[in-house]
Amino acid sequence: MLHATVDSVRAQIAAILAAWGAPPHLAETTAEVMAETDLMGVDSHGISMLTMYEEIHRAGVLRLAGEPFLRRDYAATALVDGADGLGHPAAMMAMKLAIEKARAFGIGAVGVVNSHHFGAAGCYARMAAAAGLMGLVTSTARGVILVPTRAAEPVLGTNPIAFAAPVPGAPPMVLDMATTTVAANKVKAYHLREKDLPPGWVVDGAGRPVTAHAEAMEFVFRRREGGITPLGGGEETGGHKGYGLALMVQMLAGALVGGSFSALRARTARPGQPHNIGHLMIALDPRAFRDLADYEADAAATLALLRETPPADPALPVLAPGDPEEAARAERLSGGIPIPEALERELREIAARAGAPFLLRAA
Amino acid sequence: MLHATVDSVRAQIAAILAAWGAPPHLAETTAEVMAETDLMGVDSHGISMLTMYEEIHRAGVLRLAGEPFLRRDYAATALVDGADGLGHPAAMMAMKLAIEKARAFGIGAVGVVNSHHFGAAGCYARMAAAAGLMGLVTSTARGVILVPTRAAEPVLGTNPIAFAAPVPGAPPMVLDMATTTVAANKVKAYHLREKDLPPGWVVDGAGRPVTAHAEAMEFVFRRREGGITPLGGGEETGGHKGYGLALMVQMLAGALVGGSFSALRARTARPGQPHNIGHLMIALDPRAFRDLADYEADAAATLALLRETPPADPALPVLAPGDPEEAARAERLSGGIPIPEALERELREIAARAGAPFLLRAA
Repeated sequence: MLHATVDSVRAQIAAILAAWGAPPHLAETTAEVMAETDLMGVDSHGISMLTMYEEIHRAGVLRLAGEPFLRRDYAATALVDGADGLGHPAAMMAMKLAIEKARAFGIGAVGVVNSHHFGAAGCYARMAAAAGLMGLVTSTARGVILVPTRAAEPVLGTNPIAFAAPVPGAPPMVLDMATTTVAANKVKAYHLREKDLPPGWVVDGAGRPVTAHAEAMEFVFRRREGGITPLGGGEETGGHKGYGLALMVQMLAGALVGGSFSALRARTARPGQPHNIGHLMIALDPRAFRDLADYEADAAATLALLRETPPADPALPVLAPGDPEEAARAERLSGGIPIPEALERELREIAARAGAPFLLRAA
Repeated sequence: MLHATVDSVRAQIAAILAAWGAPPHLAETTAEVMAETDLMGVDSHGISMLTMYEEIHRAGVLRLAGEPFLRRDYAATALVDGADGLGHPAAMMAMKLAIEKARAFGIGAVGVVNSHHFGAAGCYARMAAAAGLMGLVTSTARGVILVPTRAAEPVLGTNPIAFAAPVPGAPPMVLDMATTTVAANKVKAYHLREKDLPPGWVVDGAGRPVTAHAEAMEFVFRRREGGITPLGGGEETGGHKGYGLALMVQMLAGALVGGSFSALRARTARPGQPHNIGHLMIALDPRAFRDLADYEADAAATLALLRETPPADPALPVLAPGDPEEAARAERLSGGIPIPEALERELREIAARAGAPFLLRAA
């Protein structure tokens, strides 16, 4: 299997996006975020996303020339319009502005409308932590896969929440989670390995757990009824909380800023209509609340205590959210980003169709 | 069983708090929040809390004369000091100020330090929704009961998250959740009924699910190792997400504002030392992001679609977060607040010890 250098992954993404018609600065910004995502081991949201982006580019949904612009500027808040282009540069612009506003006002919140898939929400939360602030990111999603508690069919998307906080002398704490129990792709991965699922991931139209992998594929990808549970699984184990979190995200990144509600949009969308994914970026400056040294001491002590907690299994130490990504980053910086053969083939074809060179190089 | 009028519940709480030495306006504000909590069916966080408040009042931990004050005022943010008194008036003061700041700046965030238990987080999120804004509330907790993913023992508390959004023509959407799978009191309730728990609520020190009710009591209330899982349960079903959310709350309501980290505090606390519970209140004004009518149309359509979703069981319609509390409120306004016999006896004793009259009256 090819283990590609991060530079070549970045260059490959930028070359394909530019060949599709993205202005160079937008192609480069997007490639930067996507390659960083691969570097951190979040393979589902990096270069592998080019398959989906090609599909919506060809369908006329993704307008690659779209340049994000500031649509509304208030005091500590603003609204960025993604101009139906790539989600990444619009989201970066929004978090940069939220950081500036947090420095001026203590807290800043910038929404994004008319955006598309923006990769991993954690990337933007990390921007705040890198600037010494806390970052909170939510986004609506295009897919409708989450079955609300007591429902027979899905209504919400993966609706992610990401949060990052700076920790002196240690990597930032970074939570980056879908509000579903698992990603739909995980069900597919189990199916490919012919492995049955644990109960609690997928339900049928009567709310019963589905564990047979082939049947789960039906409910997640083909049938109208049934689908993936909210975080918590069934009602008895707190699934109504995950449902509530997913709906909270829909209200923040949808109704508040003007992003679409995919379950409603699906009823009226014309072919080629942009997704109008909405995001909300919030940054908080610890200095607005207390002396920075006090924040830093408490943040460091909190994370240190967690990492030092006795583990249930001595071979598996307690991790802080973000630790797995830091470990992947260190490993992949030298060892390269693994590109499975099927993905390499796919990327060669995408590059060829775009008229872009194939640039991936072994680390 | 006594079903008490909300007026008598409010008067009873205020009379006891005043007899303990709370200034009348603080006793009344607290009683208002607590009685409203009982009215909405959240029995665990209303008048029944007087047992715990009496205990920490007698231990010198809860300083009932403590008057919350504004300790730091920035632009869109501020910090309230709870003066080691009741949490409710400090939290109300903070959310009121967050609402004012959101009206002026688009978003407002007000932290609270040196506070105590503030009841149900949802009460303060509801204040924002009643003012036409969105509200987001987090709080640290005194108890250390949540076992992080892969850990052998608990490190975090119930660390609640509440969110409310106004919905025209309908009750607000209100999420009010602990970041644990269940409350410790639910384990006790199962034990009292000699009922075994579903797997996923409680783990032992090796991370194995505990379902026997008596054994679960040991791990939750008596032994150092084992305890309650984060939302999501085990790692396979997403428990690391619930752990991440609980830690996010600790960073927002603890490190950011200066609230204590109970697992660390437990190592050094002197007898009678106040809890220094921290809260963070955020309010967001939809008008800062888009035209109010557009927000209202989207919020109403989103909640309507959820309530109209076909249910898995026709007898159990799909609910929006907050619906159960609305239903309880309507029922209890006329039928009264149920006060189980054991609680009535307890309240008579607390009132007698305080030198306050017993005021509960049947509806």
